[in-house]
Amino acid sequence: MTYCAGILVQDGLVMIADTRTNAGLDDISTFRKLHVFSWPGDRTFGLMTAGNLSVTQSVVSLLHEGLPNPETGESDTLQGATSMFRAAQLVGRAIRHVRSEDGPALKDAGVKFDVSMLFGGQIKGQPMRLFMVYGAGNFIECGMDAPFLQIGEHKYGKPILDRAITHKTHLYDALKVGLISMDSTMRSNLGVGLPIDLIVMRRDADAPELNRRIEAGEPYFHDLRERWSAALRAAHTAIPRPPYEPKSP
Amino acid sequence: MTYCAGILVQDGLVMIADTRTNAGLDDISTFRKLHVFSWPGDRTFGLMTAGNLSVTQSVVSLLHEGLPNPETGESDTLQGATSMFRAAQLVGRAIRHVRSEDGPALKDAGVKFDVSMLFGGQIKGQPMRLFMVYGAGNFIECGMDAPFLQIGEHKYGKPILDRAITHKTHLYDALKVGLISMDSTMRSNLGVGLPIDLIVMRRDADAPELNRRIEAGEPYFHDLRERWSAALRAAHTAIPRPPYEPKSP
Repeated sequence: MTYCAGILVQDGLVMIADTRTNAGLDDISTFRKLHVFSWPGDRTFGLMTAGNLSVTQSVVSLLHEGLPNPETGESDTLQGATSMFRAAQLVGRAIRHVRSEDGPALKDAGVKFDVSMLFGGQIKGQPMRLFMVYGAGNFIECGMDAPFLQIGEHKYGKPILDRAITHKTHLYDALKVGLISMDSTMRSNLGVGLPIDLIVMRRDADAPELNRRIEAGEPYFHDLRERWSAALRAAHTAIPRPPYEPKSP
Repeated sequence: MTYCAGILVQDGLVMIADTRTNAGLDDISTFRKLHVFSWPGDRTFGLMTAGNLSVTQSVVSLLHEGLPNPETGESDTLQGATSMFRAAQLVGRAIRHVRSEDGPALKDAGVKFDVSMLFGGQIKGQPMRLFMVYGAGNFIECGMDAPFLQIGEHKYGKPILDRAITHKTHLYDALKVGLISMDSTMRSNLGVGLPIDLIVMRRDADAPELNRRIEAGEPYFHDLRERWSAALRAAHTAIPRPPYEPKSP
């Protein structure tokens, strides 16, 4: 299982991913799902992956190596992409490439080719953008009305994003709410777990402003979880009971 | 879509169901998914259903009519069940009966036979129990460690139940938290909507204590939604921002 959220606000982009993978509940490991591709001063991309780990790792490797372009005979790379749109297309092409190579054998083995990715970032002088790329290599773009995208086990953590995130949310409030969303998911689904990887990219900056891993016991995240729990408890306690209870005779 | 939650606490049982059904987003209707079978003084059962409406309605009709028992030549009914376990088995048998009658034609038509139900209640002098019955007619029972069960779109509303419900929760606090859980689901998923049907059964009572429909605009539920929103906003606002932001030079 996996939970990743990308939040694109006025001042920049936050990407948060858990690191738990499982091939069965008795085979749980920690793998990085947030990958940063950065050429400081020119472009920075974040890629978060959900789904079959062999597929997603192959896609990441392909993106590092570059994809052969049969028309030009050269390799297409993220560094050479002329726009975020072209870069997202390249991610989609990498997924299709892995599908064409591994898909038939996976199908024979009864393994579903089931991946999704969040891809975001900025090329100098161009808009910052965030995309969700599907297993067929097609993709959608995050808009201002609902300025976040999620992959993996997204439902537990969606209500707080729905309520708290707007385009104008402060960049580090977006990170905070993303961490609350991650906390809600981790509490309700064992398939999502610490550590958490995150990056913060400020719009028009030359490099990621923050690229961090939160481990178990990290004081701020521990405190956030405690405070959020206490606040929720206080919140539902403060709501009056339904006035439907029949009066005792 | 559907969201139903059953909460079994020390003092009784709460069952809450939404009423929205959709055959495509352009074909949305309101149907009752919470069905009450009550013989006051003897037994009361609540049945909540998720999945294909033609299947679930057939199951409910069968349970009202009684299921032919090939061994005795008579009809088995909920009124005649000798225990909650036997009653839950009867619900499972009704699902299997519909599967054997409608399953092949549904399969031909490419329609999945996909239902799940929550069945709870009490027979006089016996324990109050709550079950989740699957599409194959098998079932599990709610225990004291996690004293609730959910069907349908259960993920959005699970975090608050995980946090707030214990076996000792007051019966009407359980109802309140169930309504918060429903609210979280409705906000994040258009497939779940008002009105909400609910029953409250107090343990060892002769009849359901409350059997109510909450319509849009109901003052208590409206107030609960407003308060919960405001409290969540206050809660995440009160948590300090992550201390990771680099200091300006």
